[in-house]
Amino acid sequence: MSQFWSDIVHKLTPYTPGEQPKLANLVKLNTNENPYGPSPKVITALKAEAADTLRLYPDPNSDMLKSVIAKTHSAYGIHSNQVFVGNGSDEVLAHVFQALLKHDLPLLFPDISYSFYPVYCGLYDIEFQTVALNSQFEIQIDDYVVPNGGIIFPNPNAPTGVPLPLVDIERLLKANTQSVVVIDEAYVDFGTESALGLINTYPNLLVSHTLSKARSLAGLRVGYTIGHPDLIEALMRVKDSFNSYPIDRFASAGAIAAMQDIDYFYETCNKVIATRELLVRDLIDLGFSALPSGANFIFAKHSKQKGEVLTAQLRKQGIIVRHFKKPERISDYLRITIGTNEESALLVDALHRILIKSI
Amino acid sequence: MSQFWSDIVHKLTPYTPGEQPKLANLVKLNTNENPYGPSPKVITALKAEAADTLRLYPDPNSDMLKSVIAKTHSAYGIHSNQVFVGNGSDEVLAHVFQALLKHDLPLLFPDISYSFYPVYCGLYDIEFQTVALNSQFEIQIDDYVVPNGGIIFPNPNAPTGVPLPLVDIERLLKANTQSVVVIDEAYVDFGTESALGLINTYPNLLVSHTLSKARSLAGLRVGYTIGHPDLIEALMRVKDSFNSYPIDRFASAGAIAAMQDIDYFYETCNKVIATRELLVRDLIDLGFSALPSGANFIFAKHSKQKGEVLTAQLRKQGIIVRHFKKPERISDYLRITIGTNEESALLVDALHRILIKSI
Repeated sequence: MSQFWSDIVHKLTPYTPGEQPKLANLVKLNTNENPYGPSPKVITALKAEAADTLRLYPDPNSDMLKSVIAKTHSAYGIHSNQVFVGNGSDEVLAHVFQALLKHDLPLLFPDISYSFYPVYCGLYDIEFQTVALNSQFEIQIDDYVVPNGGIIFPNPNAPTGVPLPLVDIERLLKANTQSVVVIDEAYVDFGTESALGLINTYPNLLVSHTLSKARSLAGLRVGYTIGHPDLIEALMRVKDSFNSYPIDRFASAGAIAAMQDIDYFYETCNKVIATRELLVRDLIDLGFSALPSGANFIFAKHSKQKGEVLTAQLRKQGIIVRHFKKPERISDYLRITIGTNEESALLVDALHRILIKSI
Repeated sequence: MSQFWSDIVHKLTPYTPGEQPKLANLVKLNTNENPYGPSPKVITALKAEAADTLRLYPDPNSDMLKSVIAKTHSAYGIHSNQVFVGNGSDEVLAHVFQALLKHDLPLLFPDISYSFYPVYCGLYDIEFQTVALNSQFEIQIDDYVVPNGGIIFPNPNAPTGVPLPLVDIERLLKANTQSVVVIDEAYVDFGTESALGLINTYPNLLVSHTLSKARSLAGLRVGYTIGHPDLIEALMRVKDSFNSYPIDRFASAGAIAAMQDIDYFYETCNKVIATRELLVRDLIDLGFSALPSGANFIFAKHSKQKGEVLTAQLRKQGIIVRHFKKPERISDYLRITIGTNEESALLVDALHRILIKSI
């Protein structure tokens, strides 16, 4: 608290990311990172960037990266001028909130969702209204068909992992043509239908992706969003009023190589999905119920033991999962990132020991 | 222009950075990059980051980098909790504008200065007032001793390169205790006195630095600002409401190695300064006058030939310098980045040919 702070700072409640522990040897299943490293082609491309050319600014517009992203999604008819890139999808979303979601009517998002959304609203003084998920933690499209200043939700949703079918998203877009609809597809590659195929039909649709999850590059910070060139222009105006060069030379080169290695991408996603299915089965055997997941994490609660207790007990055994105290109705859930099969086995063993002792 | 844009977007006039040409073999003296690449120790550190660990998020607080920056400036009594880091000093400044410079009274900065300042004011709806430099393009401290919502200027100033003595900055701080004073020291290492030694005396002082210039890492995007922990807290609140992980693993590792290699840093700066002094002498021989420079660029005008014409003629010969059409009283100047001695020789030869033909 200081007389020197701008007014807005006093009111901010910043986002708290999952813990990034500085201890080694922990089984880290708390921030939805990929258990598999990036493609060997990415590593090669990154090594080549460690050179004298670092003295020079990167391309302020990241043209080559945008063109590779467009090409990756060319089956959906995406072109470069429909792509906006940023320093992680969190930066992309920040610009989206400021550039496209601040209007007289309130922005709508689910009551249980990515907890950064209300934080952005605080930063840009955006009015918002949350919309309750139903009792199965599903987004109910009909609840969003009310006057609004924009709509945003993740698909699959976070932290639940529950996917929304594409037909529902199209139903929403048909009913809501007067404000921007953002589908945050950070986890879409682990078994959820993408809305990218709707971009060329709905000029108010933005679909955002990240390279932090399915492309194993959380440490590199690259995200992007795709939409009508008019929406992209708004984002470019904000970006060019904020930071001319958000994408450094490594981020650009690594992201390009990662988008191009499609085989590695599918192989990694399929391994994660297979591990998820095995882990769900094992957790059910241990007395958990899990929400359907289209993500690289599962959201599960035990029939008898509290989420907070399990999280603390697992931590003692060197395994970190994520637990949300609020809102109340998710406080018994654990959000468990899918690791390798070996990490799943360690988790299941640890839970087995904890549950035998405590029940 | 679109119904979907937030109001602020319609009003933005984004910053235009200097051209980043995609042609090779140009003599690029337009964006104040260092002609010497980063330290070999930086290259080694960066190569080591191209690894499996890229699947993991970086440290959201960049603790190790902050600690190394504090240590580099420990002669000034700087500690880690006085350091804020960002994705280039442009991002750092963006957060500074939003977190600390938006008040009822107008922000003050020079009429001729870094042209990103009014852009940030547009982005965050900050009222500002420019203060004219004197006829020698110098900042006149007395003109800033009026009620204000904050003061910011580069030292040395941009695009003039003119340094302000430290005694003047301290005089300003003594007279102005009720608002934040930001000294933007992007170019300070090329012969200007730093205000870092005043940080522990004036709780309203912020001093910002970049690794893009003296540390040869424009391609890596790291900047930082130093000030009282209360000011840093405001910046952290904004940063954590914008992007949890702005510094990727390469940016962190490269910046740490660059800050630590002090010998290489001094050697590079001294070479640039020596080249600058030779170039100033050569330009004077060609009929130019140059403002005194404490930066890695010089601001010079020819007695007979227009800045715009010279810039265009140089471009034809494969040499890019920067020219500003506005404001009027700098429209005859060229802003010339200091390159190697060889690049200076090419520039001088080209100017010689152009001037002989045209005068």
